[in-house]
Amino acid sequence: MKIGILTSGGDCPGLNAVIRGIVLKGTTSYDLEFVGIRDGWRGVVEGDFFPLTRHEVKGLSKVGGTILGTSRTNPYEGERGGAENIAKTLYGHKIDGIIAIGGEGTLAAADRLAKDGIKVLGVPKTIDNDLRATDYSFGFDTAVNIATDAMDRLRTTGDSHQRCMVAEVMGRHVGWIALHAGMAAGAHAILIPEVPQSLEQVAERVTRAHDRGRAPLVVVSEGFTLEGMTEAYSDKGLDAFNRPRLGGIGDQLAPEIERITGIETRATILGHIQRGGSPSAFDRVLATRLGLHAADAVVEGDWGQMVAMRGTDIVRVPFAEALGELNTVPRYRYDEAAALFG
Amino acid sequence: MKIGILTSGGDCPGLNAVIRGIVLKGTTSYDLEFVGIRDGWRGVVEGDFFPLTRHEVKGLSKVGGTILGTSRTNPYEGERGGAENIAKTLYGHKIDGIIAIGGEGTLAAADRLAKDGIKVLGVPKTIDNDLRATDYSFGFDTAVNIATDAMDRLRTTGDSHQRCMVAEVMGRHVGWIALHAGMAAGAHAILIPEVPQSLEQVAERVTRAHDRGRAPLVVVSEGFTLEGMTEAYSDKGLDAFNRPRLGGIGDQLAPEIERITGIETRATILGHIQRGGSPSAFDRVLATRLGLHAADAVVEGDWGQMVAMRGTDIVRVPFAEALGELNTVPRYRYDEAAALFG
Amino acid sequence: MKIGILTSGGDCPGLNAVIRGIVLKGTTSYDLEFVGIRDGWRGVVEGDFFPLTRHEVKGLSKVGGTILGTSRTNPYEGERGGAENIAKTLYGHKIDGIIAIGGEGTLAAADRLAKDGIKVLGVPKTIDNDLRATDYSFGFDTAVNIATDAMDRLRTTGDSHQRCMVAEVMGRHVGWIALHAGMAAGAHAILIPEVPQSLEQVAERVTRAHDRGRAPLVVVSEGFTLEGMTEAYSDKGLDAFNRPRLGGIGDQLAPEIERITGIETRATILGHIQRGGSPSAFDRVLATRLGLHAADAVVEGDWGQMVAMRGTDIVRVPFAEALGELNTVPRYRYDEAAALFG
Amino acid sequence: MKIGILTSGGDCPGLNAVIRGIVLKGTTSYDLEFVGIRDGWRGVVEGDFFPLTRHEVKGLSKVGGTILGTSRTNPYEGERGGAENIAKTLYGHKIDGIIAIGGEGTLAAADRLAKDGIKVLGVPKTIDNDLRATDYSFGFDTAVNIATDAMDRLRTTGDSHQRCMVAEVMGRHVGWIALHAGMAAGAHAILIPEVPQSLEQVAERVTRAHDRGRAPLVVVSEGFTLEGMTEAYSDKGLDAFNRPRLGGIGDQLAPEIERITGIETRATILGHIQRGGSPSAFDRVLATRLGLHAADAVVEGDWGQMVAMRGTDIVRVPFAEALGELNTVPRYRYDEAAALFG
Repeated sequence: MKIGILTSGGDCPGLNAVIRGIVLKGTTSYDLEFVGIRDGWRGVVEGDFFPLTRHEVKGLSKVGGTILGTSRTNPYEGERGGAENIAKTLYGHKIDGIIAIGGEGTLAAADRLAKDGIKVLGVPKTIDNDLRATDYSFGFDTAVNIATDAMDRLRTTGDSHQRCMVAEVMGRHVGWIALHAGMAAGAHAILIPEVPQSLEQVAERVTRAHDRGRAPLVVVSEGFTLEGMTEAYSDKGLDAFNRPRLGGIGDQLAPEIERITGIETRATILGHIQRGGSPSAFDRVLATRLGLHAADAVVEGDWGQMVAMRGTDIVRVPFAEALGELNTVPRYRYDEAAALFG
Repeated sequence: MKIGILTSGGDCPGLNAVIRGIVLKGTTSYDLEFVGIRDGWRGVVEGDFFPLTRHEVKGLSKVGGTILGTSRTNPYEGERGGAENIAKTLYGHKIDGIIAIGGEGTLAAADRLAKDGIKVLGVPKTIDNDLRATDYSFGFDTAVNIATDAMDRLRTTGDSHQRCMVAEVMGRHVGWIALHAGMAAGAHAILIPEVPQSLEQVAERVTRAHDRGRAPLVVVSEGFTLEGMTEAYSDKGLDAFNRPRLGGIGDQLAPEIERITGIETRATILGHIQRGGSPSAFDRVLATRLGLHAADAVVEGDWGQMVAMRGTDIVRVPFAEALGELNTVPRYRYDEAAALFG
Repeated sequence: MKIGILTSGGDCPGLNAVIRGIVLKGTTSYDLEFVGIRDGWRGVVEGDFFPLTRHEVKGLSKVGGTILGTSRTNPYEGERGGAENIAKTLYGHKIDGIIAIGGEGTLAAADRLAKDGIKVLGVPKTIDNDLRATDYSFGFDTAVNIATDAMDRLRTTGDSHQRCMVAEVMGRHVGWIALHAGMAAGAHAILIPEVPQSLEQVAERVTRAHDRGRAPLVVVSEGFTLEGMTEAYSDKGLDAFNRPRLGGIGDQLAPEIERITGIETRATILGHIQRGGSPSAFDRVLATRLGLHAADAVVEGDWGQMVAMRGTDIVRVPFAEALGELNTVPRYRYDEAAALFG
Repeated sequence: MKIGILTSGGDCPGLNAVIRGIVLKGTTSYDLEFVGIRDGWRGVVEGDFFPLTRHEVKGLSKVGGTILGTSRTNPYEGERGGAENIAKTLYGHKIDGIIAIGGEGTLAAADRLAKDGIKVLGVPKTIDNDLRATDYSFGFDTAVNIATDAMDRLRTTGDSHQRCMVAEVMGRHVGWIALHAGMAAGAHAILIPEVPQSLEQVAERVTRAHDRGRAPLVVVSEGFTLEGMTEAYSDKGLDAFNRPRLGGIGDQLAPEIERITGIETRATILGHIQRGGSPSAFDRVLATRLGLHAADAVVEGDWGQMVAMRGTDIVRVPFAEALGELNTVPRYRYDEAAALFG
C-alpha cells in the first residue's frame, strides 16, 4: 500500500515527529510505502508528491515545523478540487490513502472526503488545545513551556520596576495556553475568551496584587474580549485596534490598566515564538505515538477515523467527535486557577 | 483548622508548587492555617514546625527542591515515633491533620498512620513515575525533558565521532524515564528493568543502527539488568561494580558494547541533574492542581485519601490503590517504542 | 567604611550578581559595611536605605532583575536633590561612598556628583551594549541568547509556511543585539540604526533569500529607521506608527515587505523578555567580576572611576571614557556580517 | 582556488558555524571553491574529499558537532602520511590549501606541514579554553553554560537534602570551565589542576559553607589532583580509580568529603553533555567570525597562520603563539573567585 501524508493549517511543534512515527512504523513493522504531500491539501489537489522513506525522517523527532510544508488550501475548492478529482489524482499516483495531520478545518475536510469515498485518516493538531476528542494535542505543551519561560522573565523585570506586566499568549477561541502558563508562572490575572471580564475587574486584581507588594503579572489570550470593550473603545475612536498586525489585546489592555490603576504597565505579545522550534519531550512522545498508531490504523483499514489521546492511551475516534464544538476551558478549571490569585 | 505539610523522600521538581497550591487555596478560599514540618517525618516525630503563610510560598511555583526539607525518616521508628506519640505531638501543637507529599514509603506510612487514627492526606510524589493510582506524577515530565535535552546533546557528539553513546537515566525499578526520553530523543535501544535483554541483543541493535550510518544512541534505566549479568561479571572479578558510587549500569555497558561491536562507546550518567532545578510547565500545573485539591479534601474532611491525576482530572483515591504494586511499563508500551528502532 | 549600592535605569540580567560580588568581597576580604539604596537615585535623594549583608545576597548570581529596585530619577532634580543635599543625607546615615550601577544617564550623574565632591564609583550597565569604555557589559550576552533562541524558533515556522519572519530586538541607538543575534541565527537581513537602508534594499534581500528556497529571516533593532521613512509613511497618514506601544518598527516593516515582495510576512516584537530572567553564565561571570573589582576600588580609594571589561581583564577607567559618544556598531562589523547573507 | 576544510580532535559546539562562515564568505565575496575533508587528517591522508557548497552549510550555525566528522589521526603517520605524500594527494585533487580547525595537536601538525611547504591555515578549537593566542575559543562558552545550568539544578537538590553536591566538569589540564561555571553557579569550592589542594582544605571549605546553613556545592575539573592523592589512595588499594571509565575525580572526592565532614555528599560527572548540542549565541558569533576571517586570510595568501580572538577583534597569529605552553588559569583569577567562598 502507498500512503500519502500531509500537514495542513498553522505549523505546530511535533508535526515532524508524527511524520517520523508513521514512516518508521509503517516501513519497519509493516510493508507500507509513503509519499509526502507538499503544502497540505494544495499538494493533494495539484498532485504534488515526493517519496518519503526512512531516510527522510531521520532525526526528525526534535525538529520543529514540518518538512512537508503547509497551507490553508481547502480541498473542495478550485478547478482540480473536490472528491472526484482528488480520487482521480490519487489513483493516478497509485496512492491508496491519506493521513491528514491538521486542526478543525483539516479534520472537517477529511471527514467530508471520507464520506465521499476517499480513504482518509486524521491526526489532530492544535497548538491552542481547542479540539475535543483528544485530552491534549502535541504542540500545546511546548507552547505552554515557552509562554511560562517568557513570563518567568517578565516577572523579574516587573519586580525591579514595580510594574505591571501583561503577556499576550496564543488562544484565538480558547484559553488553555493562558490558563496553564498563568498557573505555572503564578500570574495574578488570567484573561481567557471563555470568561469575559470588565476592565474594572482586571484593574482590581492588578491593584490587589500590587497592594500585597507584588509586581502584577497578567496573562491574556489573544482571543479575550473585555466585557463591553467594543463600545468603550469606539467612544475614543481607537479604530486602530482593529488593524490585526498593529498590536493585539495585550497592547490595548496595558494603557488601560495603567490609566485606571496608576501602575506603570507594559505589554509583550509573545506571538510566533510559541509555535516554533524544538518540541518539548511531552510533545515529541505524544506526536510519535500518534504517528505509530496512525500506521496501525492504516494497516487495519480503519479509515475515516482519527487517532487521539485519552488518559495515557492512544485511541481511535470518529472525526465527528472532534468537530462541531470547541474544547473550551470549563468554568471549574478557571475557578480552580482563580483561587491562586485570590 | 491548623494543618501541617511535609515532604519526604528524594526531592522532586514541583514539591514547592504543591506546597504553594495548598497554602494559597487553604488561606484564600477557606480559613485554614498551616505549619511547615521540617525534613519529612522527622519533623513530625520531633515536633519541628514553623508557620507557613501566603508570604512564605510567594513565587514558589518555579522553584525546584522543597522549602520544607526532606528526609527518609520512618515515623514508626525511634523513641518518639509511633502513632500514639505522634498524636500527642500534634495535639500539643494544635495541629489537626497532616498533608504528606511523598513516594511509596511515605504513602505506606501515611496509610498506617491513618488506620491508627491520625488525620493524614497524601500527595503522590515520584520522579520515576512508579506509583499506580496516578496517571503521571509531577517531577517526571521535568526529568524526561532534562534527559531528552542531554541525549540531544550526546547525539551530536556521537555523530561527529561515529561513536555509540550510552545515557544512563533515573529509574530504579521502572523504565518510564528511559522509555519517554528514548522515544523523544530517537534512541536506537531503550533498556528498562521491565524488559531484560542480553548483551548480545543490545550489541545487535547498536550494530544495526551503525550499519545504517547512524551514531547509535542507547538509553538505559539505572535499574536495568543485563540477562545473566551477575555471572558474566563475576567471571572477570569486577566486584567494583557493586560499589554504588563508582559507575552505574551505563559505565558497565559501554565497554562491553565496544568490546562486542568494535564501535567506540562512551557512557554518561545523568544522575542528580534530572531531579533538580525549575519544574517544567506541565509539572508546575500538575503540582499546583494537586495542592489545590488537597486543600479541598482537607476542608471536606476526606482524610485517609490521596489526590491523583486521571486523564485531565484530579481525583481522590484510597492510599491502598497506590501501594503494593509498582506502576511498571507495560509490555505493549515497550513494543510500541521498539518499533522505532526497528 | 559604609558603602551604599544602587541600581538605576532599565533592569538588566546580572545586576544582582554585581551586588553579590561587591558584598561578598567587601565583607569577606575587607571590612566594609553595605547598605542597599532603594530605586536608584530616588533612594539617595530620599535617604531610603537598608542594611545589605552576606545573607541578603545569598544565591543571587542566577537571579534576574535587581533586589534594590530601580528608577529613572535624576539626583540633581527635586527639592532634596543636588550634590549638597545628597552629601548631607549620606553624612546623616554615615555612608562614606556610593557604588552606582547604571547606564549612560546614571554614569553622567555619577560623574557630576564625583566632581561635586561625592565619593562615587561606577559600574557600567547596558543591555544594548551602547557604552564605550567596556568591551561588553553584562546583560548583553543574555539578551543575545534570548533573541537567538527566539529567532531559531521563528525560522521553523517560517520554513513551514514559506513566510518571511521579522524579529524586532532591543537596541534604541545601536544595533549590537541585532548584529550578534542575526549572525547567530543566520538572518538574511540585519537592520541596525547605524546603517540606514531603504525598503527596496530590504525587500531585495528578502526576495534573494526566498529565491534560494529559504524562508527569509529579518532581524531589526527597535531603533532602526528606514531611509526616507517619515515621508513615505506620512503620505499614507499612518500616524498610528508614532504611538509607542502600538507596534514598533517590526510591525511597520512586515506589511511593507509583504506588499513589495509578495511574500507573506509576519513580525514578532521580542520586547521585555530580552531583559528579564536568569543571566547567562557569561553575564554572571562578568557581573560578578565587576562587583569584586568595585569592592577593591573602594578599598583603594579610587573614587570617581568606573570598572570595565577590556579583553579578559577588568580595569578602571574615568567616567569620561564612557560618556559623550555611544559605542556604535562599526561599519566593518556590519559588512563582516553582511557577507553571510550575500 | 580550491580549499579543503577539516575538523580534527574532540568535537566542540561551533565547528559547523566555522565551516559555514568560511564557505559563505569564500563563495559569496570571493570566488573560492571548497571541499570537505572527512574525519580530520585521516581524510587528507586518504584523499577522502567531497564538494562543499553553500547548500551543504545551510542552517549550520546552530547545529552542534561537525558535518565533516573528526578523528585523532596524525598526518605524519601511516604509509600515505607525511608532507610529501600529502602534497601529492592535494595536487592530485587540485586542492590548493587546507583550513584545519582543531586543538593543540592539530595546530602543531598544521605548523609542521606549513614548514614542510603545505599551504595550511589554522582555526583554534578547544572546549577547555587551553590554547594561548586566543582570548576565548568557541565551545567554551557553551560548555560553561551547560555546566552552570547543571549546577543550578544540583543546588536545589542539595538544599532540599542538606547535602554536599560535587560536580565534575571538563578540563584535563586547565580549570577554566570549573572557574567560570563555579563563579556563575556560586560554588563554595572550585578545584582546578592549576591549584592543587589537600583533601583537608576541600573539607574545610565544605564544612564552612555547611556551617553557614548552605548546601555546599563543589565544582572540580576532571584534571584536578588532590595534593598527595596517589599515596593516599594506593594505601587503600583503590586501583579501580585508574580505570578511566569507572568514575572520575568527582566520584573519588565525594566519599572522602563525606568521610571527613560527616556531610552526605553526592557526585555528578557531567561528561559529554558539555560538548554536544547547539552552541550558545556567543560561540556561534565567535565561530562564524573566525570562519569569515579564515576565508579572508586564504584570499590574501596568508598561509601558515591561525585566526584568533583578541578583545573584540579577530586577528591572525603565527601557529607558534598557540603552541608549547597551555593557557592555564592565572593565580590571580583563582584568587579573585576564591574571595566569593570566603
